[in-house]
Amino acid sequence: MTDDQVRDRAKDDHVVFIGAKPFMNYVTGVVMQFTTQGAPEVVIKARGKFITRAVDIAEVASKRFLENQIDVSDIKIDSEEFQNKEGKQVRVSTIDITLKKRESFA
Amino acid sequence: MTDDQVRDRAKDDHVVFIGAKPFMNYVTGVVMQFTTQGAPEVVIKARGKFITRAVDIAEVASKRFLENQIDVSDIKIDSEEFQNKEGKQVRVSTIDITLKKRESFA
Repeated sequence: MTDDQVRDRAKDDHVVFIGAKPFMNYVTGVVMQFTTQGAPEVVIKARGKFITRAVDIAEVASKRFLENQIDVSDIKIDSEEFQNKEGKQVRVSTIDITLKKRESFA
Repeated sequence: MTDDQVRDRAKDDHVVFIGAKPFMNYVTGVVMQFTTQGAPEVVIKARGKFITRAVDIAEVASKRFLENQIDVSDIKIDSEEFQNKEGKQVRVSTIDITLKKRESFA
């Protein structure tokens, strides 16, 4: 489990934040939440340029690794405004993709 | 209107495909579908690395340009497999973001 994932577990057992680590780390993280942690749902979260990656990870987890076992149950997009280091107001988009175990595997 | 958008209109009046053109071209394209074309719904579509951009465009259109006038009503992700030029099987993720005019503005 990555440091990010350990930190997430403190506030929410089944959230995976997507960042710059190797792609398969995140796929494995998601798959293991379902298979070894018994999660009924996992939320994949990403901001900015990592949004595409979050979609790729959701697709690979649900279509290849856990095909017919999990589905995308909800997708939310939003944006956050904050000041960057130069004091400039910037906006970044976010995505939350919820994957859900199918009933027959729950 | 861009070539992509002209082509899209043939099959669906209110679809905007996101690519490598300047960011504001797409935002303007989406906003004008609602304001001058009278679209009740606009679907923003993107593949691969343009997915993050599609989310940014949906956010800027709905939170800044048409605030309180349109909402994200649906988001779908999927993936397509195809052979690349080298004959290798590759997978690309896709996103469809549906923006919808609020009732009071319909």
